[in-house]
Amino acid sequence: MIIVTSNKGKYAEYREIMEREGISLELVLMSYPEEQLDTVEEVARRSAEFLRNVVGGDFFIDDSGLFIESLKGFPGVYSSYVNRTLGNEGILKLLDGKIDRGAEFRTCIAYYDGAVNIFVGKTRGVISTEIRGRNGFGYDPIFIPEGEGRTYAEMSTEEKDLLSHRSKAASAFINFLKKKKI
Amino acid sequence: MIIVTSNKGKYAEYREIMEREGISLELVLMSYPEEQLDTVEEVARRSAEFLRNVVGGDFFIDDSGLFIESLKGFPGVYSSYVNRTLGNEGILKLLDGKIDRGAEFRTCIAYYDGAVNIFVGKTRGVISTEIRGRNGFGYDPIFIPEGEGRTYAEMSTEEKDLLSHRSKAASAFINFLKKKKI
Repeated sequence: MIIVTSNKGKYAEYREIMEREGISLELVLMSYPEEQLDTVEEVARRSAEFLRNVVGGDFFIDDSGLFIESLKGFPGVYSSYVNRTLGNEGILKLLDGKIDRGAEFRTCIAYYDGAVNIFVGKTRGVISTEIRGRNGFGYDPIFIPEGEGRTYAEMSTEEKDLLSHRSKAASAFINFLKKKKI
Repeated sequence: MIIVTSNKGKYAEYREIMEREGISLELVLMSYPEEQLDTVEEVARRSAEFLRNVVGGDFFIDDSGLFIESLKGFPGVYSSYVNRTLGNEGILKLLDGKIDRGAEFRTCIAYYDGAVNIFVGKTRGVISTEIRGRNGFGYDPIFIPEGEGRTYAEMSTEEKDLLSHRSKAASAFINFLKKKKI
């Protein structure tokens, strides 16, 4: 299986999840156009439609975002850009003094095998009041998934995989691949 | 001349500037795809390339953004999205306690007349410490152009037109149109 991404953190997470299922993962390390759309599903679908003419054979991509309720869904599909500019400190500053810290992490996998297939995973949680932990990447140090006291970044990869938005999307994707084989 | 935009504030500014030069302006009120790119020039060019197959005849679009230095250029090409979600309050919160409040407003006009022609206007300034004024739209109430004490939103349309990023791009564009006619 081929993943197209410019984010080595994503590749590492997928490799771990998929190799556990006996699927070996190859990385095509590249950036690709992403449109300014409202949902991770729309962004992933459009990018996959672009890439099918660029990448030879089947591949998948991952578009993910953190949607913070009291910020009207910000940073949403622009999560990567906002992480590079404002960082986790910026998000904490924006939430300073806000009581509602509810958020949702969303991943959309778009898998191209002649058609574009979409798999979505979501995990609800809250934004922590401080940066905590060193694992993962992006917003992991400020996202506490529902039912947990720790941020994603305070969990081991295996612990995060049990409940993360990305692993939920990956599970749906892997089930689809298994059914295809039968 | 035709402008394609979903922003009536932009249309109003261009109509005023262009009618003063004897150019009548028609509005095609629609949204169009915008790619996640780093500069207003790239976004405007790509969108114009898309629209040339959609709009009949010549047209222009405007991609603008506010680039705040201490925020690594945020909100940049995502200014419209950030204005809808965080608003001016969010920007002030992010700058709270920062000494460097320098910023630049940039407009790129992409005019299609068989080819895509690019005109850029930039105005440097600072972000105010509070929301001031009621004119204009978007970030106008928090942007104080260099050499001024007032925000864009505290100026009349005529005053803003003398120094705004948008009117600079428009001037270059109008000069081009005049030369074309000769």
